[in-house]
Amino acid sequence: MTTIKIPEPTLRRLPMYYQFLKRQKKEGREFISCTHISNDLNLIPVQVRKDLQNAGAVGKPKVGYEVDTLISIIEGTLGYNNLNEAFLVGMGNLGQALSAHKEFEKCGMEIIATFDTSPLKIGRDYFGKRVFPLNKFKNLSQRMNIKIGIITTPAKNAQEIADLMVDAGIKGIWNFAPVHLNVPDDVTVQNENLATSLSVLLNKMSQ
Amino acid sequence: MTTIKIPEPTLRRLPMYYQFLKRQKKEGREFISCTHISNDLNLIPVQVRKDLQNAGAVGKPKVGYEVDTLISIIEGTLGYNNLNEAFLVGMGNLGQALSAHKEFEKCGMEIIATFDTSPLKIGRDYFGKRVFPLNKFKNLSQRMNIKIGIITTPAKNAQEIADLMVDAGIKGIWNFAPVHLNVPDDVTVQNENLATSLSVLLNKMSQ
Repeated sequence: MTTIKIPEPTLRRLPMYYQFLKRQKKEGREFISCTHISNDLNLIPVQVRKDLQNAGAVGKPKVGYEVDTLISIIEGTLGYNNLNEAFLVGMGNLGQALSAHKEFEKCGMEIIATFDTSPLKIGRDYFGKRVFPLNKFKNLSQRMNIKIGIITTPAKNAQEIADLMVDAGIKGIWNFAPVHLNVPDDVTVQNENLATSLSVLLNKMSQ
Repeated sequence: MTTIKIPEPTLRRLPMYYQFLKRQKKEGREFISCTHISNDLNLIPVQVRKDLQNAGAVGKPKVGYEVDTLISIIEGTLGYNNLNEAFLVGMGNLGQALSAHKEFEKCGMEIIATFDTSPLKIGRDYFGKRVFPLNKFKNLSQRMNIKIGIITTPAKNAQEIADLMVDAGIKGIWNFAPVHLNVPDDVTVQNENLATSLSVLLNKMSQ
């Protein structure tokens, strides 16, 4: 994985630049300017230049950035070159959708196994991924040296699953359950709360 | 909908308080203190008190807040009492997962129809919701006075869908496609970029 320290706001924009650049490449573009990127993404050019500089990319005056080089630099910065393997727990609709989501592999992560407690799901394949019983989590993750866990269980089970993951040596948890997780300091939690985003949208619309 | 102006950081925490309070209510709790809430959610008590005050709730010394009252106040602030109807476009795995997600109704939004361009999906029911052809969007949304659109299409189609939504009178777009959308000033866009969150997680883990 990358060890470059990048400010979080930059980090949150880099994937957007990356996706934009990939589309530009597909359309045959070889060079691109900050202004072009900023226009499309509705940012100011200075912001784009600063973000790309943070990632380690420097453009040439009047020419801009070579698209291929810029893509490689962002891939390196975001760790897209190092594919991280992840386990997912909770194969409800959201878990199934995430495990079918091919885009994650382009972003440096592959979900290689999923877990559930339902006898109706265990042993089945969803989108080419086998569902294992939860009690196999620790053994499998340790043998395969898995460091990323994804939680898509109901809120009431999430802390218990987080405890299991921590005990199994997981160092990063992507939490889709709408609940705060208590974990040791050396474990990173990234919360994804859809209800929160929805509230922000509804509240902004009402103003 | 609510018209109370709430700072966005508060707004992002209120759903978390709400979900916590609903669980506490289920367990029979009648009164709760800021300290209790803050301990569970890993915040400082002063922050919780300020957030609840922003929402219009005032606790009593030594007693705290009545759980039922607090739930009602947050529901009112977040607009959970006014069910907003939404249309969703793009019935891939993510679209299917979202349309099956029962939690949204508790958060003031119901997805009442979905749209796709695939003949394999049009006319089918997913989780009790009919998939309509995309060319019915404008007519249906205008007749039903729909103001919220959800985009779960691939990035390359998202702008075109956003244009269609704006033309049909949609005022709030929840965008799951990893692309910036250009919309008029009176339309609110809430972006949900899973690749971005994943990058933040991977980068934090590497530090």
